[in-house]
Amino acid sequence: MSRVTCQISMSLDGYVAGPNQSMDDPIGEGGMDLHQWALATSTWREQHGGRGGERNADAEIVERSMQGVGAFIMGRRMFGGGDGPWDESWQGWWGEDPPYHAPVFVLTHHPREPLTMQGGTTFTFVTDGIEAALEQARAAAGDLDVAIAGGASAVNQYLAAGLLDELHLHVGPITLGAGERLFDGVGRLSFEPVEVVASPAVTHLKYRALR
Amino acid sequence: MSRVTCQISMSLDGYVAGPNQSMDDPIGEGGMDLHQWALATSTWREQHGGRGGERNADAEIVERSMQGVGAFIMGRRMFGGGDGPWDESWQGWWGEDPPYHAPVFVLTHHPREPLTMQGGTTFTFVTDGIEAALEQARAAAGDLDVAIAGGASAVNQYLAAGLLDELHLHVGPITLGAGERLFDGVGRLSFEPVEVVASPAVTHLKYRALR
Repeated sequence: MSRVTCQISMSLDGYVAGPNQSMDDPIGEGGMDLHQWALATSTWREQHGGRGGERNADAEIVERSMQGVGAFIMGRRMFGGGDGPWDESWQGWWGEDPPYHAPVFVLTHHPREPLTMQGGTTFTFVTDGIEAALEQARAAAGDLDVAIAGGASAVNQYLAAGLLDELHLHVGPITLGAGERLFDGVGRLSFEPVEVVASPAVTHLKYRALR
Repeated sequence: MSRVTCQISMSLDGYVAGPNQSMDDPIGEGGMDLHQWALATSTWREQHGGRGGERNADAEIVERSMQGVGAFIMGRRMFGGGDGPWDESWQGWWGEDPPYHAPVFVLTHHPREPLTMQGGTTFTFVTDGIEAALEQARAAAGDLDVAIAGGASAVNQYLAAGLLDELHLHVGPITLGAGERLFDGVGRLSFEPVEVVASPAVTHLKYRALR
């Protein structure tokens, strides 16, 4: 059975992006520090056309994070290109061959024709809400999982609606003090701890949502 | 060398107490859920004059949490008795033999004579700030550690001032949605992960503060 999953890097104080996000600094001040653990791995570098990097527990986590995912959902801000009606020259942050290699459904209030990229990534723009996006993503994923790619607002909407099955947090040993918070507005939720993997750089906590 | 430590139970969304705290519900709505992992252990029950309970990894964490501590510091609200000048009939939440068995320094704006309880616990009320309280606690602790017992505001003040050496978080698999947040107002801090212990109920994350 297809599950709805999310894996996301978070600071100790619950932020998944720093303050003052902009087109030049899409992840906000200090936000990149949350991702250094992944960028240092061999797996991430290979996925993004690079070489070298660490072959460690973190590399294995990165590798597993893309396995079994048949479709992705992301928020408008994660896809980028600013607010309001689309500047259609914007095709995302990732170049011609984005690292998704699967259908990606982008939550937005502004209609846009689908985009077909290289390597199997397509971006479909969904204007009728998170449940409609999930329905389309499930249909595209078949027996594989649907991954909520981010950012905080998209993940929080799926959490609050009780639509997320598995949450994999990569908790970095820093506080950011401000920015975009995971779990904002989700109320009281319960999870079952499924797996804990500790590395020198980050702690990976996997949870199953309880309903 | 004496260290300044803190061990505290926290929800996934960063709360160490729930909303709507009161004399009847000192830890706020849902706050007790953060402590069930400890209350279920044999160690906690023995420390509080009870019997039975689980002898598991969590019990070992509870046992170690009180070892090597020569003095405690806590906020006024954790000691309780309401706001404003003291009602001197209030001697804390813990009865005649509190579980500290060491000098406890209470941060407050309102002077009060020290209280001597049974079992070696004394409460000294410090009105001249967190650094003065730490100085007194260090003197009382000698070579042993000074533990910041809570609540959130006291811990956050020591974190923000760069005075905490070691932070041991017990992260429960729940969100509370509101309440008192650890790390509020501490800005950007860095830690080194020291130890991770996973149990079915909670994940224990120990960090050393980097300066």
